[in-house]
Amino acid sequence: MADILKGGPVAAALSEELKTRAEKLKEAGTVPTLAILRVGERPDDISYENGAMKRCDKIGVAVKRFLLPGDCTKQQLLDTICEINGDSSIHGCLMFRPLPDKAMEDAACALLASEKDVDGMTAGSLASVFTGKGAGFPPCTAQACIELLDHYGVTLTGKRAVVIGRSLVIGKPVAMMLQKRNATITMCHTRTVDMPGVCREAEIVIAAAGKAGIVDKSFVAPGQVVVDVGINVDENGKLCGDVSFDEVEPAVAAITPVPGGVGAVTTAVLAKHVIEAAEKIQK
Amino acid sequence: MADILKGGPVAAALSEELKTRAEKLKEAGTVPTLAILRVGERPDDISYENGAMKRCDKIGVAVKRFLLPGDCTKQQLLDTICEINGDSSIHGCLMFRPLPDKAMEDAACALLASEKDVDGMTAGSLASVFTGKGAGFPPCTAQACIELLDHYGVTLTGKRAVVIGRSLVIGKPVAMMLQKRNATITMCHTRTVDMPGVCREAEIVIAAAGKAGIVDKSFVAPGQVVVDVGINVDENGKLCGDVSFDEVEPAVAAITPVPGGVGAVTTAVLAKHVIEAAEKIQK
Repeated sequence: MADILKGGPVAAALSEELKTRAEKLKEAGTVPTLAILRVGERPDDISYENGAMKRCDKIGVAVKRFLLPGDCTKQQLLDTICEINGDSSIHGCLMFRPLPDKAMEDAACALLASEKDVDGMTAGSLASVFTGKGAGFPPCTAQACIELLDHYGVTLTGKRAVVIGRSLVIGKPVAMMLQKRNATITMCHTRTVDMPGVCREAEIVIAAAGKAGIVDKSFVAPGQVVVDVGINVDENGKLCGDVSFDEVEPAVAAITPVPGGVGAVTTAVLAKHVIEAAEKIQK
Repeated sequence: MADILKGGPVAAALSEELKTRAEKLKEAGTVPTLAILRVGERPDDISYENGAMKRCDKIGVAVKRFLLPGDCTKQQLLDTICEINGDSSIHGCLMFRPLPDKAMEDAACALLASEKDVDGMTAGSLASVFTGKGAGFPPCTAQACIELLDHYGVTLTGKRAVVIGRSLVIGKPVAMMLQKRNATITMCHTRTVDMPGVCREAEIVIAAAGKAGIVDKSFVAPGQVVVDVGINVDENGKLCGDVSFDEVEPAVAAITPVPGGVGAVTTAVLAKHVIEAAEKIQK
């Protein structure tokens, strides 16, 4: 029986700490404030937005919403980003992605001020994840993996960590963050030969392939910690991760569930990044 | 007996191809031009500069040198970068690093236009190595490793590649470049546990630790290709790599020598980046 590394307690502990920091900022005259920029009415976006607003409210982070119609023009979107960049009362901006128009999304990402980029969408933020210096923040989901491992006392220094997936939203940044914490990282992807064998060498497996259940028991070994970042819908319409939980769970030391694992930590990380952005300005 | 993967033939083949491209640019009215910016009179810098100038001359890349005294002010350095940025006849800039003053170096790196950054020193170039999009070029030494492997027909897709070292000048970028070519990468560093064991799992080993001879025969396995990026001076004052050549060479399939390996390819790569920068502007 593996330890089930639930996200709820991580988010709760993080929220407690953040409440105090938000309080301090307010005492000094700053209300940490998040801009949420949503284009259209995608149910996933709205559901995440509601969760983020609740979390921010609990912690003491104000939210300003910027809602644009699904058929807004590029100029409207860029004007909104300019407004957010120029509004000194806003410390961070979450823009839901992907946008239907990729060129529009790229232009928006290029325009957002890196210091307000609390979800790793700008080149500046990604450069700072890679180089370890500069403005911006890593993507919240990548940071959530690290927060979760830290919360449950998983040592990273010297550990072998395999990351499955090489996206800019999660695979690449989480690998760099694990490396910064002195893990020895290996990155798997669709062209990896013998992925199960590569994964079995690791002490920590981060599954971020975005494919339901591809990590089966052939991928894991006794003693491993498995972090499942996937959020997929299975053939029965049920939420599931990248890991075949039922067959992997008995074979490893610890595993995050889906739902209720990494995903449950992301909104607290979002609030953390907004508070950090506000603290940086105050200094 | 391993194949000795010398850099000379790689540089020669690359130069031939680049000559044709430089010729084409000139026919269209553009002389591809490199700015070399050197602060002080460090013998290593001057020696590399001489090599770069010879290589550029052979290929048909013009060089403009900007030489500043070792005790120049930050303002002088930044003015020079501004001049290079503003001079449309200059397509690429090589600035020797490290500078004695780290803050001055950071300011210079931040000011240089990414599209003229032919040696991966700006955040923009490093972001593009990480994200796979954007302006700039990877560090020449990292690109030289890839050119060398390509020249000798070493397939990268699906191969396990271990990179020793996580510097921004070579370890991190070369790992990302190998991954872009679909290798499965692992990154080792000072905190890696059992580095020899990790390296033995690989099919390609890139040694970029910057420590003379740390890769001994315990790190390697039959069939491996070993690329030695180290340039160190041993106790007898002789140039040597990160690999103990004499004991590793008989144990692997192929190995690059030091000197005469990766180092011999870097000036050709520098010229290549200048030509690419010029071609981009022409389009």
